[in-house]
Amino acid sequence: MNIQKPSIPKGTRDFGPDKMIRRSYIFDTIRSVFQKYGFLPIETPAIENLAVLSGKYGDEGDKLIFKILNSGDFLAESTPESFNNYKSLTPKIAEKALRYDLTVPFARYVVMNRNEINFPFKRYQIQPVWRADRPQKGRYREFYQCDADVVGTNSLICEAEIVMMINEVLTKLGLKDFTIKINNRKILTGITEIIGKKGAETQLCVAIDKLDKIGFDGVIKELKENDFSDGNIEKLLPIINLNGNTSEKLNKLKELYSTNTTLNTGVAEVEQILKYLDGLKSENNNLEFDLTLARGLSYYTGAIFEVKTNETEMGSICGGGRYDNLTGVFGLPDTSGVGISFGVDRIYDVLETLDRFPTSNLNSTKVLICGFDEACLQYGLSILSRLRKESINAEIYPDAAKMKKQMSYADGKKIAYVIIIGSEELLSGKLTFKNMLNGEQVRLTSDEIIARIKNQ
Amino acid sequence: MNIQKPSIPKGTRDFGPDKMIRRSYIFDTIRSVFQKYGFLPIETPAIENLAVLSGKYGDEGDKLIFKILNSGDFLAESTPESFNNYKSLTPKIAEKALRYDLTVPFARYVVMNRNEINFPFKRYQIQPVWRADRPQKGRYREFYQCDADVVGTNSLICEAEIVMMINEVLTKLGLKDFTIKINNRKILTGITEIIGKKGAETQLCVAIDKLDKIGFDGVIKELKENDFSDGNIEKLLPIINLNGNTSEKLNKLKELYSTNTTLNTGVAEVEQILKYLDGLKSENNNLEFDLTLARGLSYYTGAIFEVKTNETEMGSICGGGRYDNLTGVFGLPDTSGVGISFGVDRIYDVLETLDRFPTSNLNSTKVLICGFDEACLQYGLSILSRLRKESINAEIYPDAAKMKKQMSYADGKKIAYVIIIGSEELLSGKLTFKNMLNGEQVRLTSDEIIARIKNQ
Repeated sequence: MNIQKPSIPKGTRDFGPDKMIRRSYIFDTIRSVFQKYGFLPIETPAIENLAVLSGKYGDEGDKLIFKILNSGDFLAESTPESFNNYKSLTPKIAEKALRYDLTVPFARYVVMNRNEINFPFKRYQIQPVWRADRPQKGRYREFYQCDADVVGTNSLICEAEIVMMINEVLTKLGLKDFTIKINNRKILTGITEIIGKKGAETQLCVAIDKLDKIGFDGVIKELKENDFSDGNIEKLLPIINLNGNTSEKLNKLKELYSTNTTLNTGVAEVEQILKYLDGLKSENNNLEFDLTLARGLSYYTGAIFEVKTNETEMGSICGGGRYDNLTGVFGLPDTSGVGISFGVDRIYDVLETLDRFPTSNLNSTKVLICGFDEACLQYGLSILSRLRKESINAEIYPDAAKMKKQMSYADGKKIAYVIIIGSEELLSGKLTFKNMLNGEQVRLTSDEIIARIKNQ
Repeated sequence: MNIQKPSIPKGTRDFGPDKMIRRSYIFDTIRSVFQKYGFLPIETPAIENLAVLSGKYGDEGDKLIFKILNSGDFLAESTPESFNNYKSLTPKIAEKALRYDLTVPFARYVVMNRNEINFPFKRYQIQPVWRADRPQKGRYREFYQCDADVVGTNSLICEAEIVMMINEVLTKLGLKDFTIKINNRKILTGITEIIGKKGAETQLCVAIDKLDKIGFDGVIKELKENDFSDGNIEKLLPIINLNGNTSEKLNKLKELYSTNTTLNTGVAEVEQILKYLDGLKSENNNLEFDLTLARGLSYYTGAIFEVKTNETEMGSICGGGRYDNLTGVFGLPDTSGVGISFGVDRIYDVLETLDRFPTSNLNSTKVLICGFDEACLQYGLSILSRLRKESINAEIYPDAAKMKKQMSYADGKKIAYVIIIGSEELLSGKLTFKNMLNGEQVRLTSDEIIARIKNQ
């Protein structure tokens, strides 16, 4: 037999039991909050038609879509000339592709099922996506996204609910100090109008987005490179430099630019969301209006969100916003939606850094039964059966191996209790019950053992 | 904008909320039993190196593996001659592929992580797999597999545990009458020796596997076509025709063929598994020794299992067995394992046909709050917040839409209770509380409503 040294593709990961249990804890927490807020699950296929994905993520994104080779003789209908250019050959030999995000498949789903969907449609979706990005620390070619969206309503109650939901998820996960930044694309559009650069929102957003990285001077330099005049920038400065708390900043904006309708609509939306949050008795002061929050994706048209933890250095752990025309490209115009996406890999790293994963329940087996010989194992099976009838997660070490080996198995699996059965125990019916945490060992009947475990 | 009519690739499926909730119920049930028996979760990437998968599923399987086109200029290193043959071109332009099953990636995982794994390793894995099969009723190109395996021990306790686990999963899912068929590959090998066709196990297994479909005469015809002589078949007949219950059949085999070591080892293994099941106080009489159970996959070497429901017409809903050398191809010989795989799509169809899905909890939202105008919605938010503090899953209809529309939303989502807030309710603080199941409507304070819901 030809022996291979196996490996996995770069940028992909195996998740062993320890990581899986911690990841599931994050997913389950998010899922339970999504459900509490009335969101329903959907799943879409990993494989989409390439035409559905192409052109939705910009030129750069198109390159990063993993394409799937047609099955069978994929060359059958290709002419020799096709082989001159891999770009034009691709759609001929690869008609399918891997999901690149959850948003475009969701838009497709909404359009294809619009007659059955009960609008406003609140859906959540937790599935992996694939990107042929260059792998690096914290950036993978296969990773999970974790999205919740409401489509089919313009109501700003949805934005307020999303803020509540972010709060509840992160608090449940044990994060204590985080900031939910909110801004509104209409305010950014208004600013371009005010400073005399109408139409240059993308350049403005892209530059402002880098404020954290390149600083104030860097932003100005980049704007100048993008054709912003000294006059434009002079008008921009007092806006970016606006200080005070959220309501002070909003009031100053209204005062300074009372005549700009677009900006004032954006400000009014932020104020309405804050009012709804008052109604929801939102107790947190985590929410912060941030004029410099831009978010790159160009499809946002209203509120935008981004969340950062203040407890450790880490990029945004959650982000989203409102979009007005997501389904238009698939033939369903005027469907407004608002959504949020949790960055599970980053949240994982934050919880690990801060040591906030729960210490209990990281293994599901409560008891291991160990036997010295075949007769002990056979007797052990009847104990095993009784434990499980009492809904206690239990297993038996399947061989009469050396006790040291069996104990090391229990340790490795972080099993709390071990029941040891030797010939003496067989005769007396009193089993050795060992607490693996403190090493304490006592002789008990099986009834006493079950009672002890259930009283923990 | 270029408007597309979107579609999904044939053989793939979208799962809307109703299906997702039913599927999650099946997955959660299986997962909870796996955990109760001490199995731990792992996940492997959807994308594997093509070399890891190639040659593991036979020639037919190789064709059905979905290959992923290399990113960037995949033609850069191809010569014009490569384009004459798509088969030899494939591994050059597609170095990665989609997971075809969970077993080969698991074997790869075990080999790559053998120094960290705590053997015997009990793992479960619930993930989708992809096959470029021709789609037809009940056969998909993307579907979930749901596997549990123990590797690193020869102990037949594992086989007994798997039988218990199958029983517990299917009983929990509400199935009442099913048969777990068991056989042993060593018995089938022994039979080939006895009838004088040593080495022809595959042909024997493949033919016997079709007994249900092509009947007794069909099997004989196929064996003759595969070079089985009249003499071979004459010796085979009394074996296949063996009748009686499980222990009668086992005893007859031992009586008739006491000199064949291979067959007797297989019989002894089946008997030992039955003895362990006695120890486990297995109450079911679902287990049936079936000499004609063969299972196609050639890597099985010991016990083999297959499960059928007797309540409706459906193929095998679960199957598995023991294999002795799964990891050998990756350089780790002598690692024995035994596993089981649940066919979730078929189980779904069975539960749907028999109407066994639970009727409650199919939607997670318990209460919908409806308001007649903006002021009512604002008040509704405070009620919403109180409900959620009491851990009641609740949502608010985000617009002051017509009441009929709001009620139809609640109906569509199968929400049990609706709280209606109009101007009268605002003044009095007594809200209209409607039971959507029986249409009953009463006026209650928010405290009374919460008390009612919690007492349900």
